[in-house]
Amino acid sequence: MKFRRSERLVDMTHYLMNHPRKLVSLTYFSQKYLSAKSSISEDLVIIKETFENQGIGTLQTLPGAAGGVKYIPKVKKEQAEEFANQLCASIADSERLLPGGYLFMTDLLGDSQVLNEVGKHLASAFSDRDIDVIMTVATKGIPIAQAVAHHLNVPFVVVRRDSLVTEGSTVSINYVSGSSKRLQTMSLSKRSLKEGAKVLIVDDFMKAGGTVNGMVNLLAEFNASVAGIAVLVESEFQEERLVEDYVSLIKLSDVDVKGKKINVVKGNFFFGKTEFL
Amino acid sequence: MKFRRSERLVDMTHYLMNHPRKLVSLTYFSQKYLSAKSSISEDLVIIKETFENQGIGTLQTLPGAAGGVKYIPKVKKEQAEEFANQLCASIADSERLLPGGYLFMTDLLGDSQVLNEVGKHLASAFSDRDIDVIMTVATKGIPIAQAVAHHLNVPFVVVRRDSLVTEGSTVSINYVSGSSKRLQTMSLSKRSLKEGAKVLIVDDFMKAGGTVNGMVNLLAEFNASVAGIAVLVESEFQEERLVEDYVSLIKLSDVDVKGKKINVVKGNFFFGKTEFL
Repeated sequence: MKFRRSERLVDMTHYLMNHPRKLVSLTYFSQKYLSAKSSISEDLVIIKETFENQGIGTLQTLPGAAGGVKYIPKVKKEQAEEFANQLCASIADSERLLPGGYLFMTDLLGDSQVLNEVGKHLASAFSDRDIDVIMTVATKGIPIAQAVAHHLNVPFVVVRRDSLVTEGSTVSINYVSGSSKRLQTMSLSKRSLKEGAKVLIVDDFMKAGGTVNGMVNLLAEFNASVAGIAVLVESEFQEERLVEDYVSLIKLSDVDVKGKKINVVKGNFFFGKTEFL
Repeated sequence: MKFRRSERLVDMTHYLMNHPRKLVSLTYFSQKYLSAKSSISEDLVIIKETFENQGIGTLQTLPGAAGGVKYIPKVKKEQAEEFANQLCASIADSERLLPGGYLFMTDLLGDSQVLNEVGKHLASAFSDRDIDVIMTVATKGIPIAQAVAHHLNVPFVVVRRDSLVTEGSTVSINYVSGSSKRLQTMSLSKRSLKEGAKVLIVDDFMKAGGTVNGMVNLLAEFNASVAGIAVLVESEFQEERLVEDYVSLIKLSDVDVKGKKINVVKGNFFFGKTEFL
């Protein structure tokens, strides 16, 4: 049964959203919907325009026999700023203050709507880069990594501070946590990373950058390379940071425990190389 | 600027997919697209038909002033069986066998496409139930919980075996792991669960059910109730299981370490109360 345009638009939107950055041939859609490639091309023009106008992303079209279409997640700057401002306001809530100046963020790291948006935004800063896999560290990096992985359509691997029997053999390194200067161990299952993999490092929080730097060193053991570094929150740090080239969505500029004030601003996502729609 | 039907269909599909189980008023769409409610209603008929035909889900329409439309994630039985069969074949790979009869599953728990499908399928079995929050246990339950949470549009909370300063005050219980009979501790941040919350327990793997049963007991400490239990893989267990009413997508029926054979079949998701499209 031939599909009508309206049905094709709904199903193609669903398909493209579920397969970011995947090159889909026009033949695939043409066969699925029993429709001419010229009709499919017209559909894609409508989808591309709507995606761009609504801040969903864009479609890249590659011509030729091996060509097709790719959905690339992108965001509009004004929508991203609105989202970041909401997040800042939520993080600045003094109820989040814990003993020692730590912040309670567990609720945000378990909010599926927030995670989806965080993942979409961080992914959009790397959606044009060649990335094979995302790496993060247990436990709190996992939700962010998974959300970014979803929007970049790549797998993610989890570095652990302990090691589990179900991981098989592992590679471990020692590293120095940047702010507390403590010696710690991190390990990754040997099967997790292929040699030469291009890896996006993702974490929920970065201060001195010791943990992220540990992951950079661990990558070297796998002969893998860093394709980028993305964190949800970076914290102001007076000394020299161990990591230079990173993208942060939010920046914690000051935590005043006595005065119960948390100062949060937008991260370098907004002031760097991010390409907006 | 008034939206054309084709643009509305693309944007509404995106919006509904990103907001499962949320009641969206026709007024919201009507104002967003500067279109008459009668046109919006016609759009929704097209989306509903396409969602159902393609195995994406369904739309529930609630009439009246407080009414609107809800996207309910559902799957078709034949598509679900195809997905489960692929998953079974992947899990039955003898390369997964680790010393002690454990299975390496870390790759699947980091595959964003697999996670999205697993989340969608498990969510579809509970999409008509009243659920406030999902609970899982660190570390390996997190990706499954997050994926299910995304498709049910609820937050998730993570029970830990250690306790972190960034969690604030916690409630802990001791429990007996069902198969190894060891005494263990699990704890959950006090702020994580509201009194009376209806909780879907999610985990990656269940054998005797000790960990899941621990979560059930922990819920009682919060005066919260069990709305359901969902696991990706259940393992055959000869003795009486600690947990009775659960949904599993996959069932590990036999692991023969010597013969290097792993026997995996479809879980009770396919033989229970799941409503398919």
